[in-house]
Amino acid sequence: MRNTQVCLASRPNGIPQAENFTLRQAEVPPLRDGQFLVRNDFLSAEPAMRGWVSAAANYSTPVGIGEVMRAFASGEVVASQHPQFAVGDKVMGMLGWQEYAVAEPAAVTRKVRESDLPLSLSLGVLGLNGLTAYFGLLDLGQPKPGDTVVVSTAAGAVGSAVGQIAKLSGCRTVGIAGGAAKCRACVETFGYDAAIDYKAPDFKDQLAAACGRGVDVYFDNTAGAISDAVLTHLSVGARIVICGTASVASWDPPPMGPRLERHILVKRARMSGLLIFDYAHRYEEAIVRLADWIRAGRLTCREDILDGIEACPGAIAQLYRGENSGKLLVRLRHG
Amino acid sequence: MRNTQVCLASRPNGIPQAENFTLRQAEVPPLRDGQFLVRNDFLSAEPAMRGWVSAAANYSTPVGIGEVMRAFASGEVVASQHPQFAVGDKVMGMLGWQEYAVAEPAAVTRKVRESDLPLSLSLGVLGLNGLTAYFGLLDLGQPKPGDTVVVSTAAGAVGSAVGQIAKLSGCRTVGIAGGAAKCRACVETFGYDAAIDYKAPDFKDQLAAACGRGVDVYFDNTAGAISDAVLTHLSVGARIVICGTASVASWDPPPMGPRLERHILVKRARMSGLLIFDYAHRYEEAIVRLADWIRAGRLTCREDILDGIEACPGAIAQLYRGENSGKLLVRLRHG
Repeated sequence: MRNTQVCLASRPNGIPQAENFTLRQAEVPPLRDGQFLVRNDFLSAEPAMRGWVSAAANYSTPVGIGEVMRAFASGEVVASQHPQFAVGDKVMGMLGWQEYAVAEPAAVTRKVRESDLPLSLSLGVLGLNGLTAYFGLLDLGQPKPGDTVVVSTAAGAVGSAVGQIAKLSGCRTVGIAGGAAKCRACVETFGYDAAIDYKAPDFKDQLAAACGRGVDVYFDNTAGAISDAVLTHLSVGARIVICGTASVASWDPPPMGPRLERHILVKRARMSGLLIFDYAHRYEEAIVRLADWIRAGRLTCREDILDGIEACPGAIAQLYRGENSGKLLVRLRHG
Repeated sequence: MRNTQVCLASRPNGIPQAENFTLRQAEVPPLRDGQFLVRNDFLSAEPAMRGWVSAAANYSTPVGIGEVMRAFASGEVVASQHPQFAVGDKVMGMLGWQEYAVAEPAAVTRKVRESDLPLSLSLGVLGLNGLTAYFGLLDLGQPKPGDTVVVSTAAGAVGSAVGQIAKLSGCRTVGIAGGAAKCRACVETFGYDAAIDYKAPDFKDQLAAACGRGVDVYFDNTAGAISDAVLTHLSVGARIVICGTASVASWDPPPMGPRLERHILVKRARMSGLLIFDYAHRYEEAIVRLADWIRAGRLTCREDILDGIEACPGAIAQLYRGENSGKLLVRLRHG
């Protein structure tokens, strides 16, 4: 059986571009004992991919040149030599940018049991994006009713869930996003109390007006100039959740910015880094809540679905250009 | 009765110098109901004073021009119109750079009941320095046995206590200090496992060698270039306690430095700001431990005692020049 794969062709300096990847046709090898074959339905494109292909020290070893691009995907088991994975099981995991994945259990993040909900959600609000929002906000951000919660990339796959879960927690939510359309989505689709366009010339004034009582929780997906502005409005005891650094094109060397120790000190704030994989033992507790909120119409998400594996190579750069209006996915059509 | 006071004469830009202060003779006014008179024995000089006289936003309103310099002091109640403060009581509190303080209870940080120990300790290891070390390290740093704990200004009044309490907690301690004499004190007096001179040309290499297994707790009194170096060695789950920013001469505007969000994110680290006054309700629990450790010879400190109130104006600048080898105090001799 033929398998189209997207491989890393060269190592980017900064944001991965389409030309850093190449498509390859391979033959699906026969399954060994303990393996199973997943036919991918949806492939994910996400900001973290920049780190995965970077040579700089990071969470994991970089994807090698010529290797299939590391990626989350969800699909269906179509053949199995493993007793715990049956044909017909839906799975989400590190299955790569490819049509078929020969997988072992370690590659699977979770079995998708919410069969009443679309499988694509398992790569977004019912996957690592929703889990990141859930644990980052609730465990590290520790919101209290009445808190002002500020979210950067507020209309994005993670940020939009953060804003909604903060509302469910009784907080006042201020979203920061780029452009009028995303700001509108923040308020109209995701229920933010206020949305601020960081590209607006009076961004800082708008932020000050929206955060008059101080920022109790800052859920940060950007770092950079947006964070610099938010940190000047911390309230005493503020919690800052560092979830991503999307505004910084390269950390090698780290860019310069105003030192922030004084804010942390004077406001007795707490800044915590989040890696969702640390919460793997608690995923199912969160999925139960997230799925119930979706069914009840209290948690919504947006998806941007590209068709065909040929869309993969350019997808990361597309994300960083902010062109997507929701979770960016690539749908594969089979048979 | 005549009272010599040290007043703020002009607002410094950066580190307060002797010429920013002036000595004044005043008459002690009669006590009103609810007041008591403290004869100060020791006046404290500390890095935080830079903030107290700065016009920039800070914990508290700045000391006004012409006002007695805000300062911790310890002394004895010599007259009282308050039922809970008796003549002979020893107190430590915000009594100012002056010989006599007309005080109300709110000015008193604590009554000093450890009459077997020198009163001067109430301004250092048995005062806010020791309390800062105790709560900053144990509450925010949360050291575990076997952790590597790095301390900046390691030989200072706070840092030396942090290093010793970390050793008592079963940690490996690495002190960072300026110059050979302070590094020697770190190892010989305060029991650090390693001491590194941040002025040494190979500071970064020495730090890397001393932190081979990663930094689990960083107790930071300096910010700036020293912190930049330490943050490159964080271990996963590291705790950073921001206690002071001694290496930064002015925060108005904030100086630039390499952005640190990526370290926090990749290492899932936690950076917390500490203000010791938040722990006021727990001071006595810590004082009991600290005093017992001192009596048992397991916690030691160094004091640099200047004689006479005339020494006050230059004392802050002296601190920032790093000339003191211990907690800097001014002793007042009374008739």
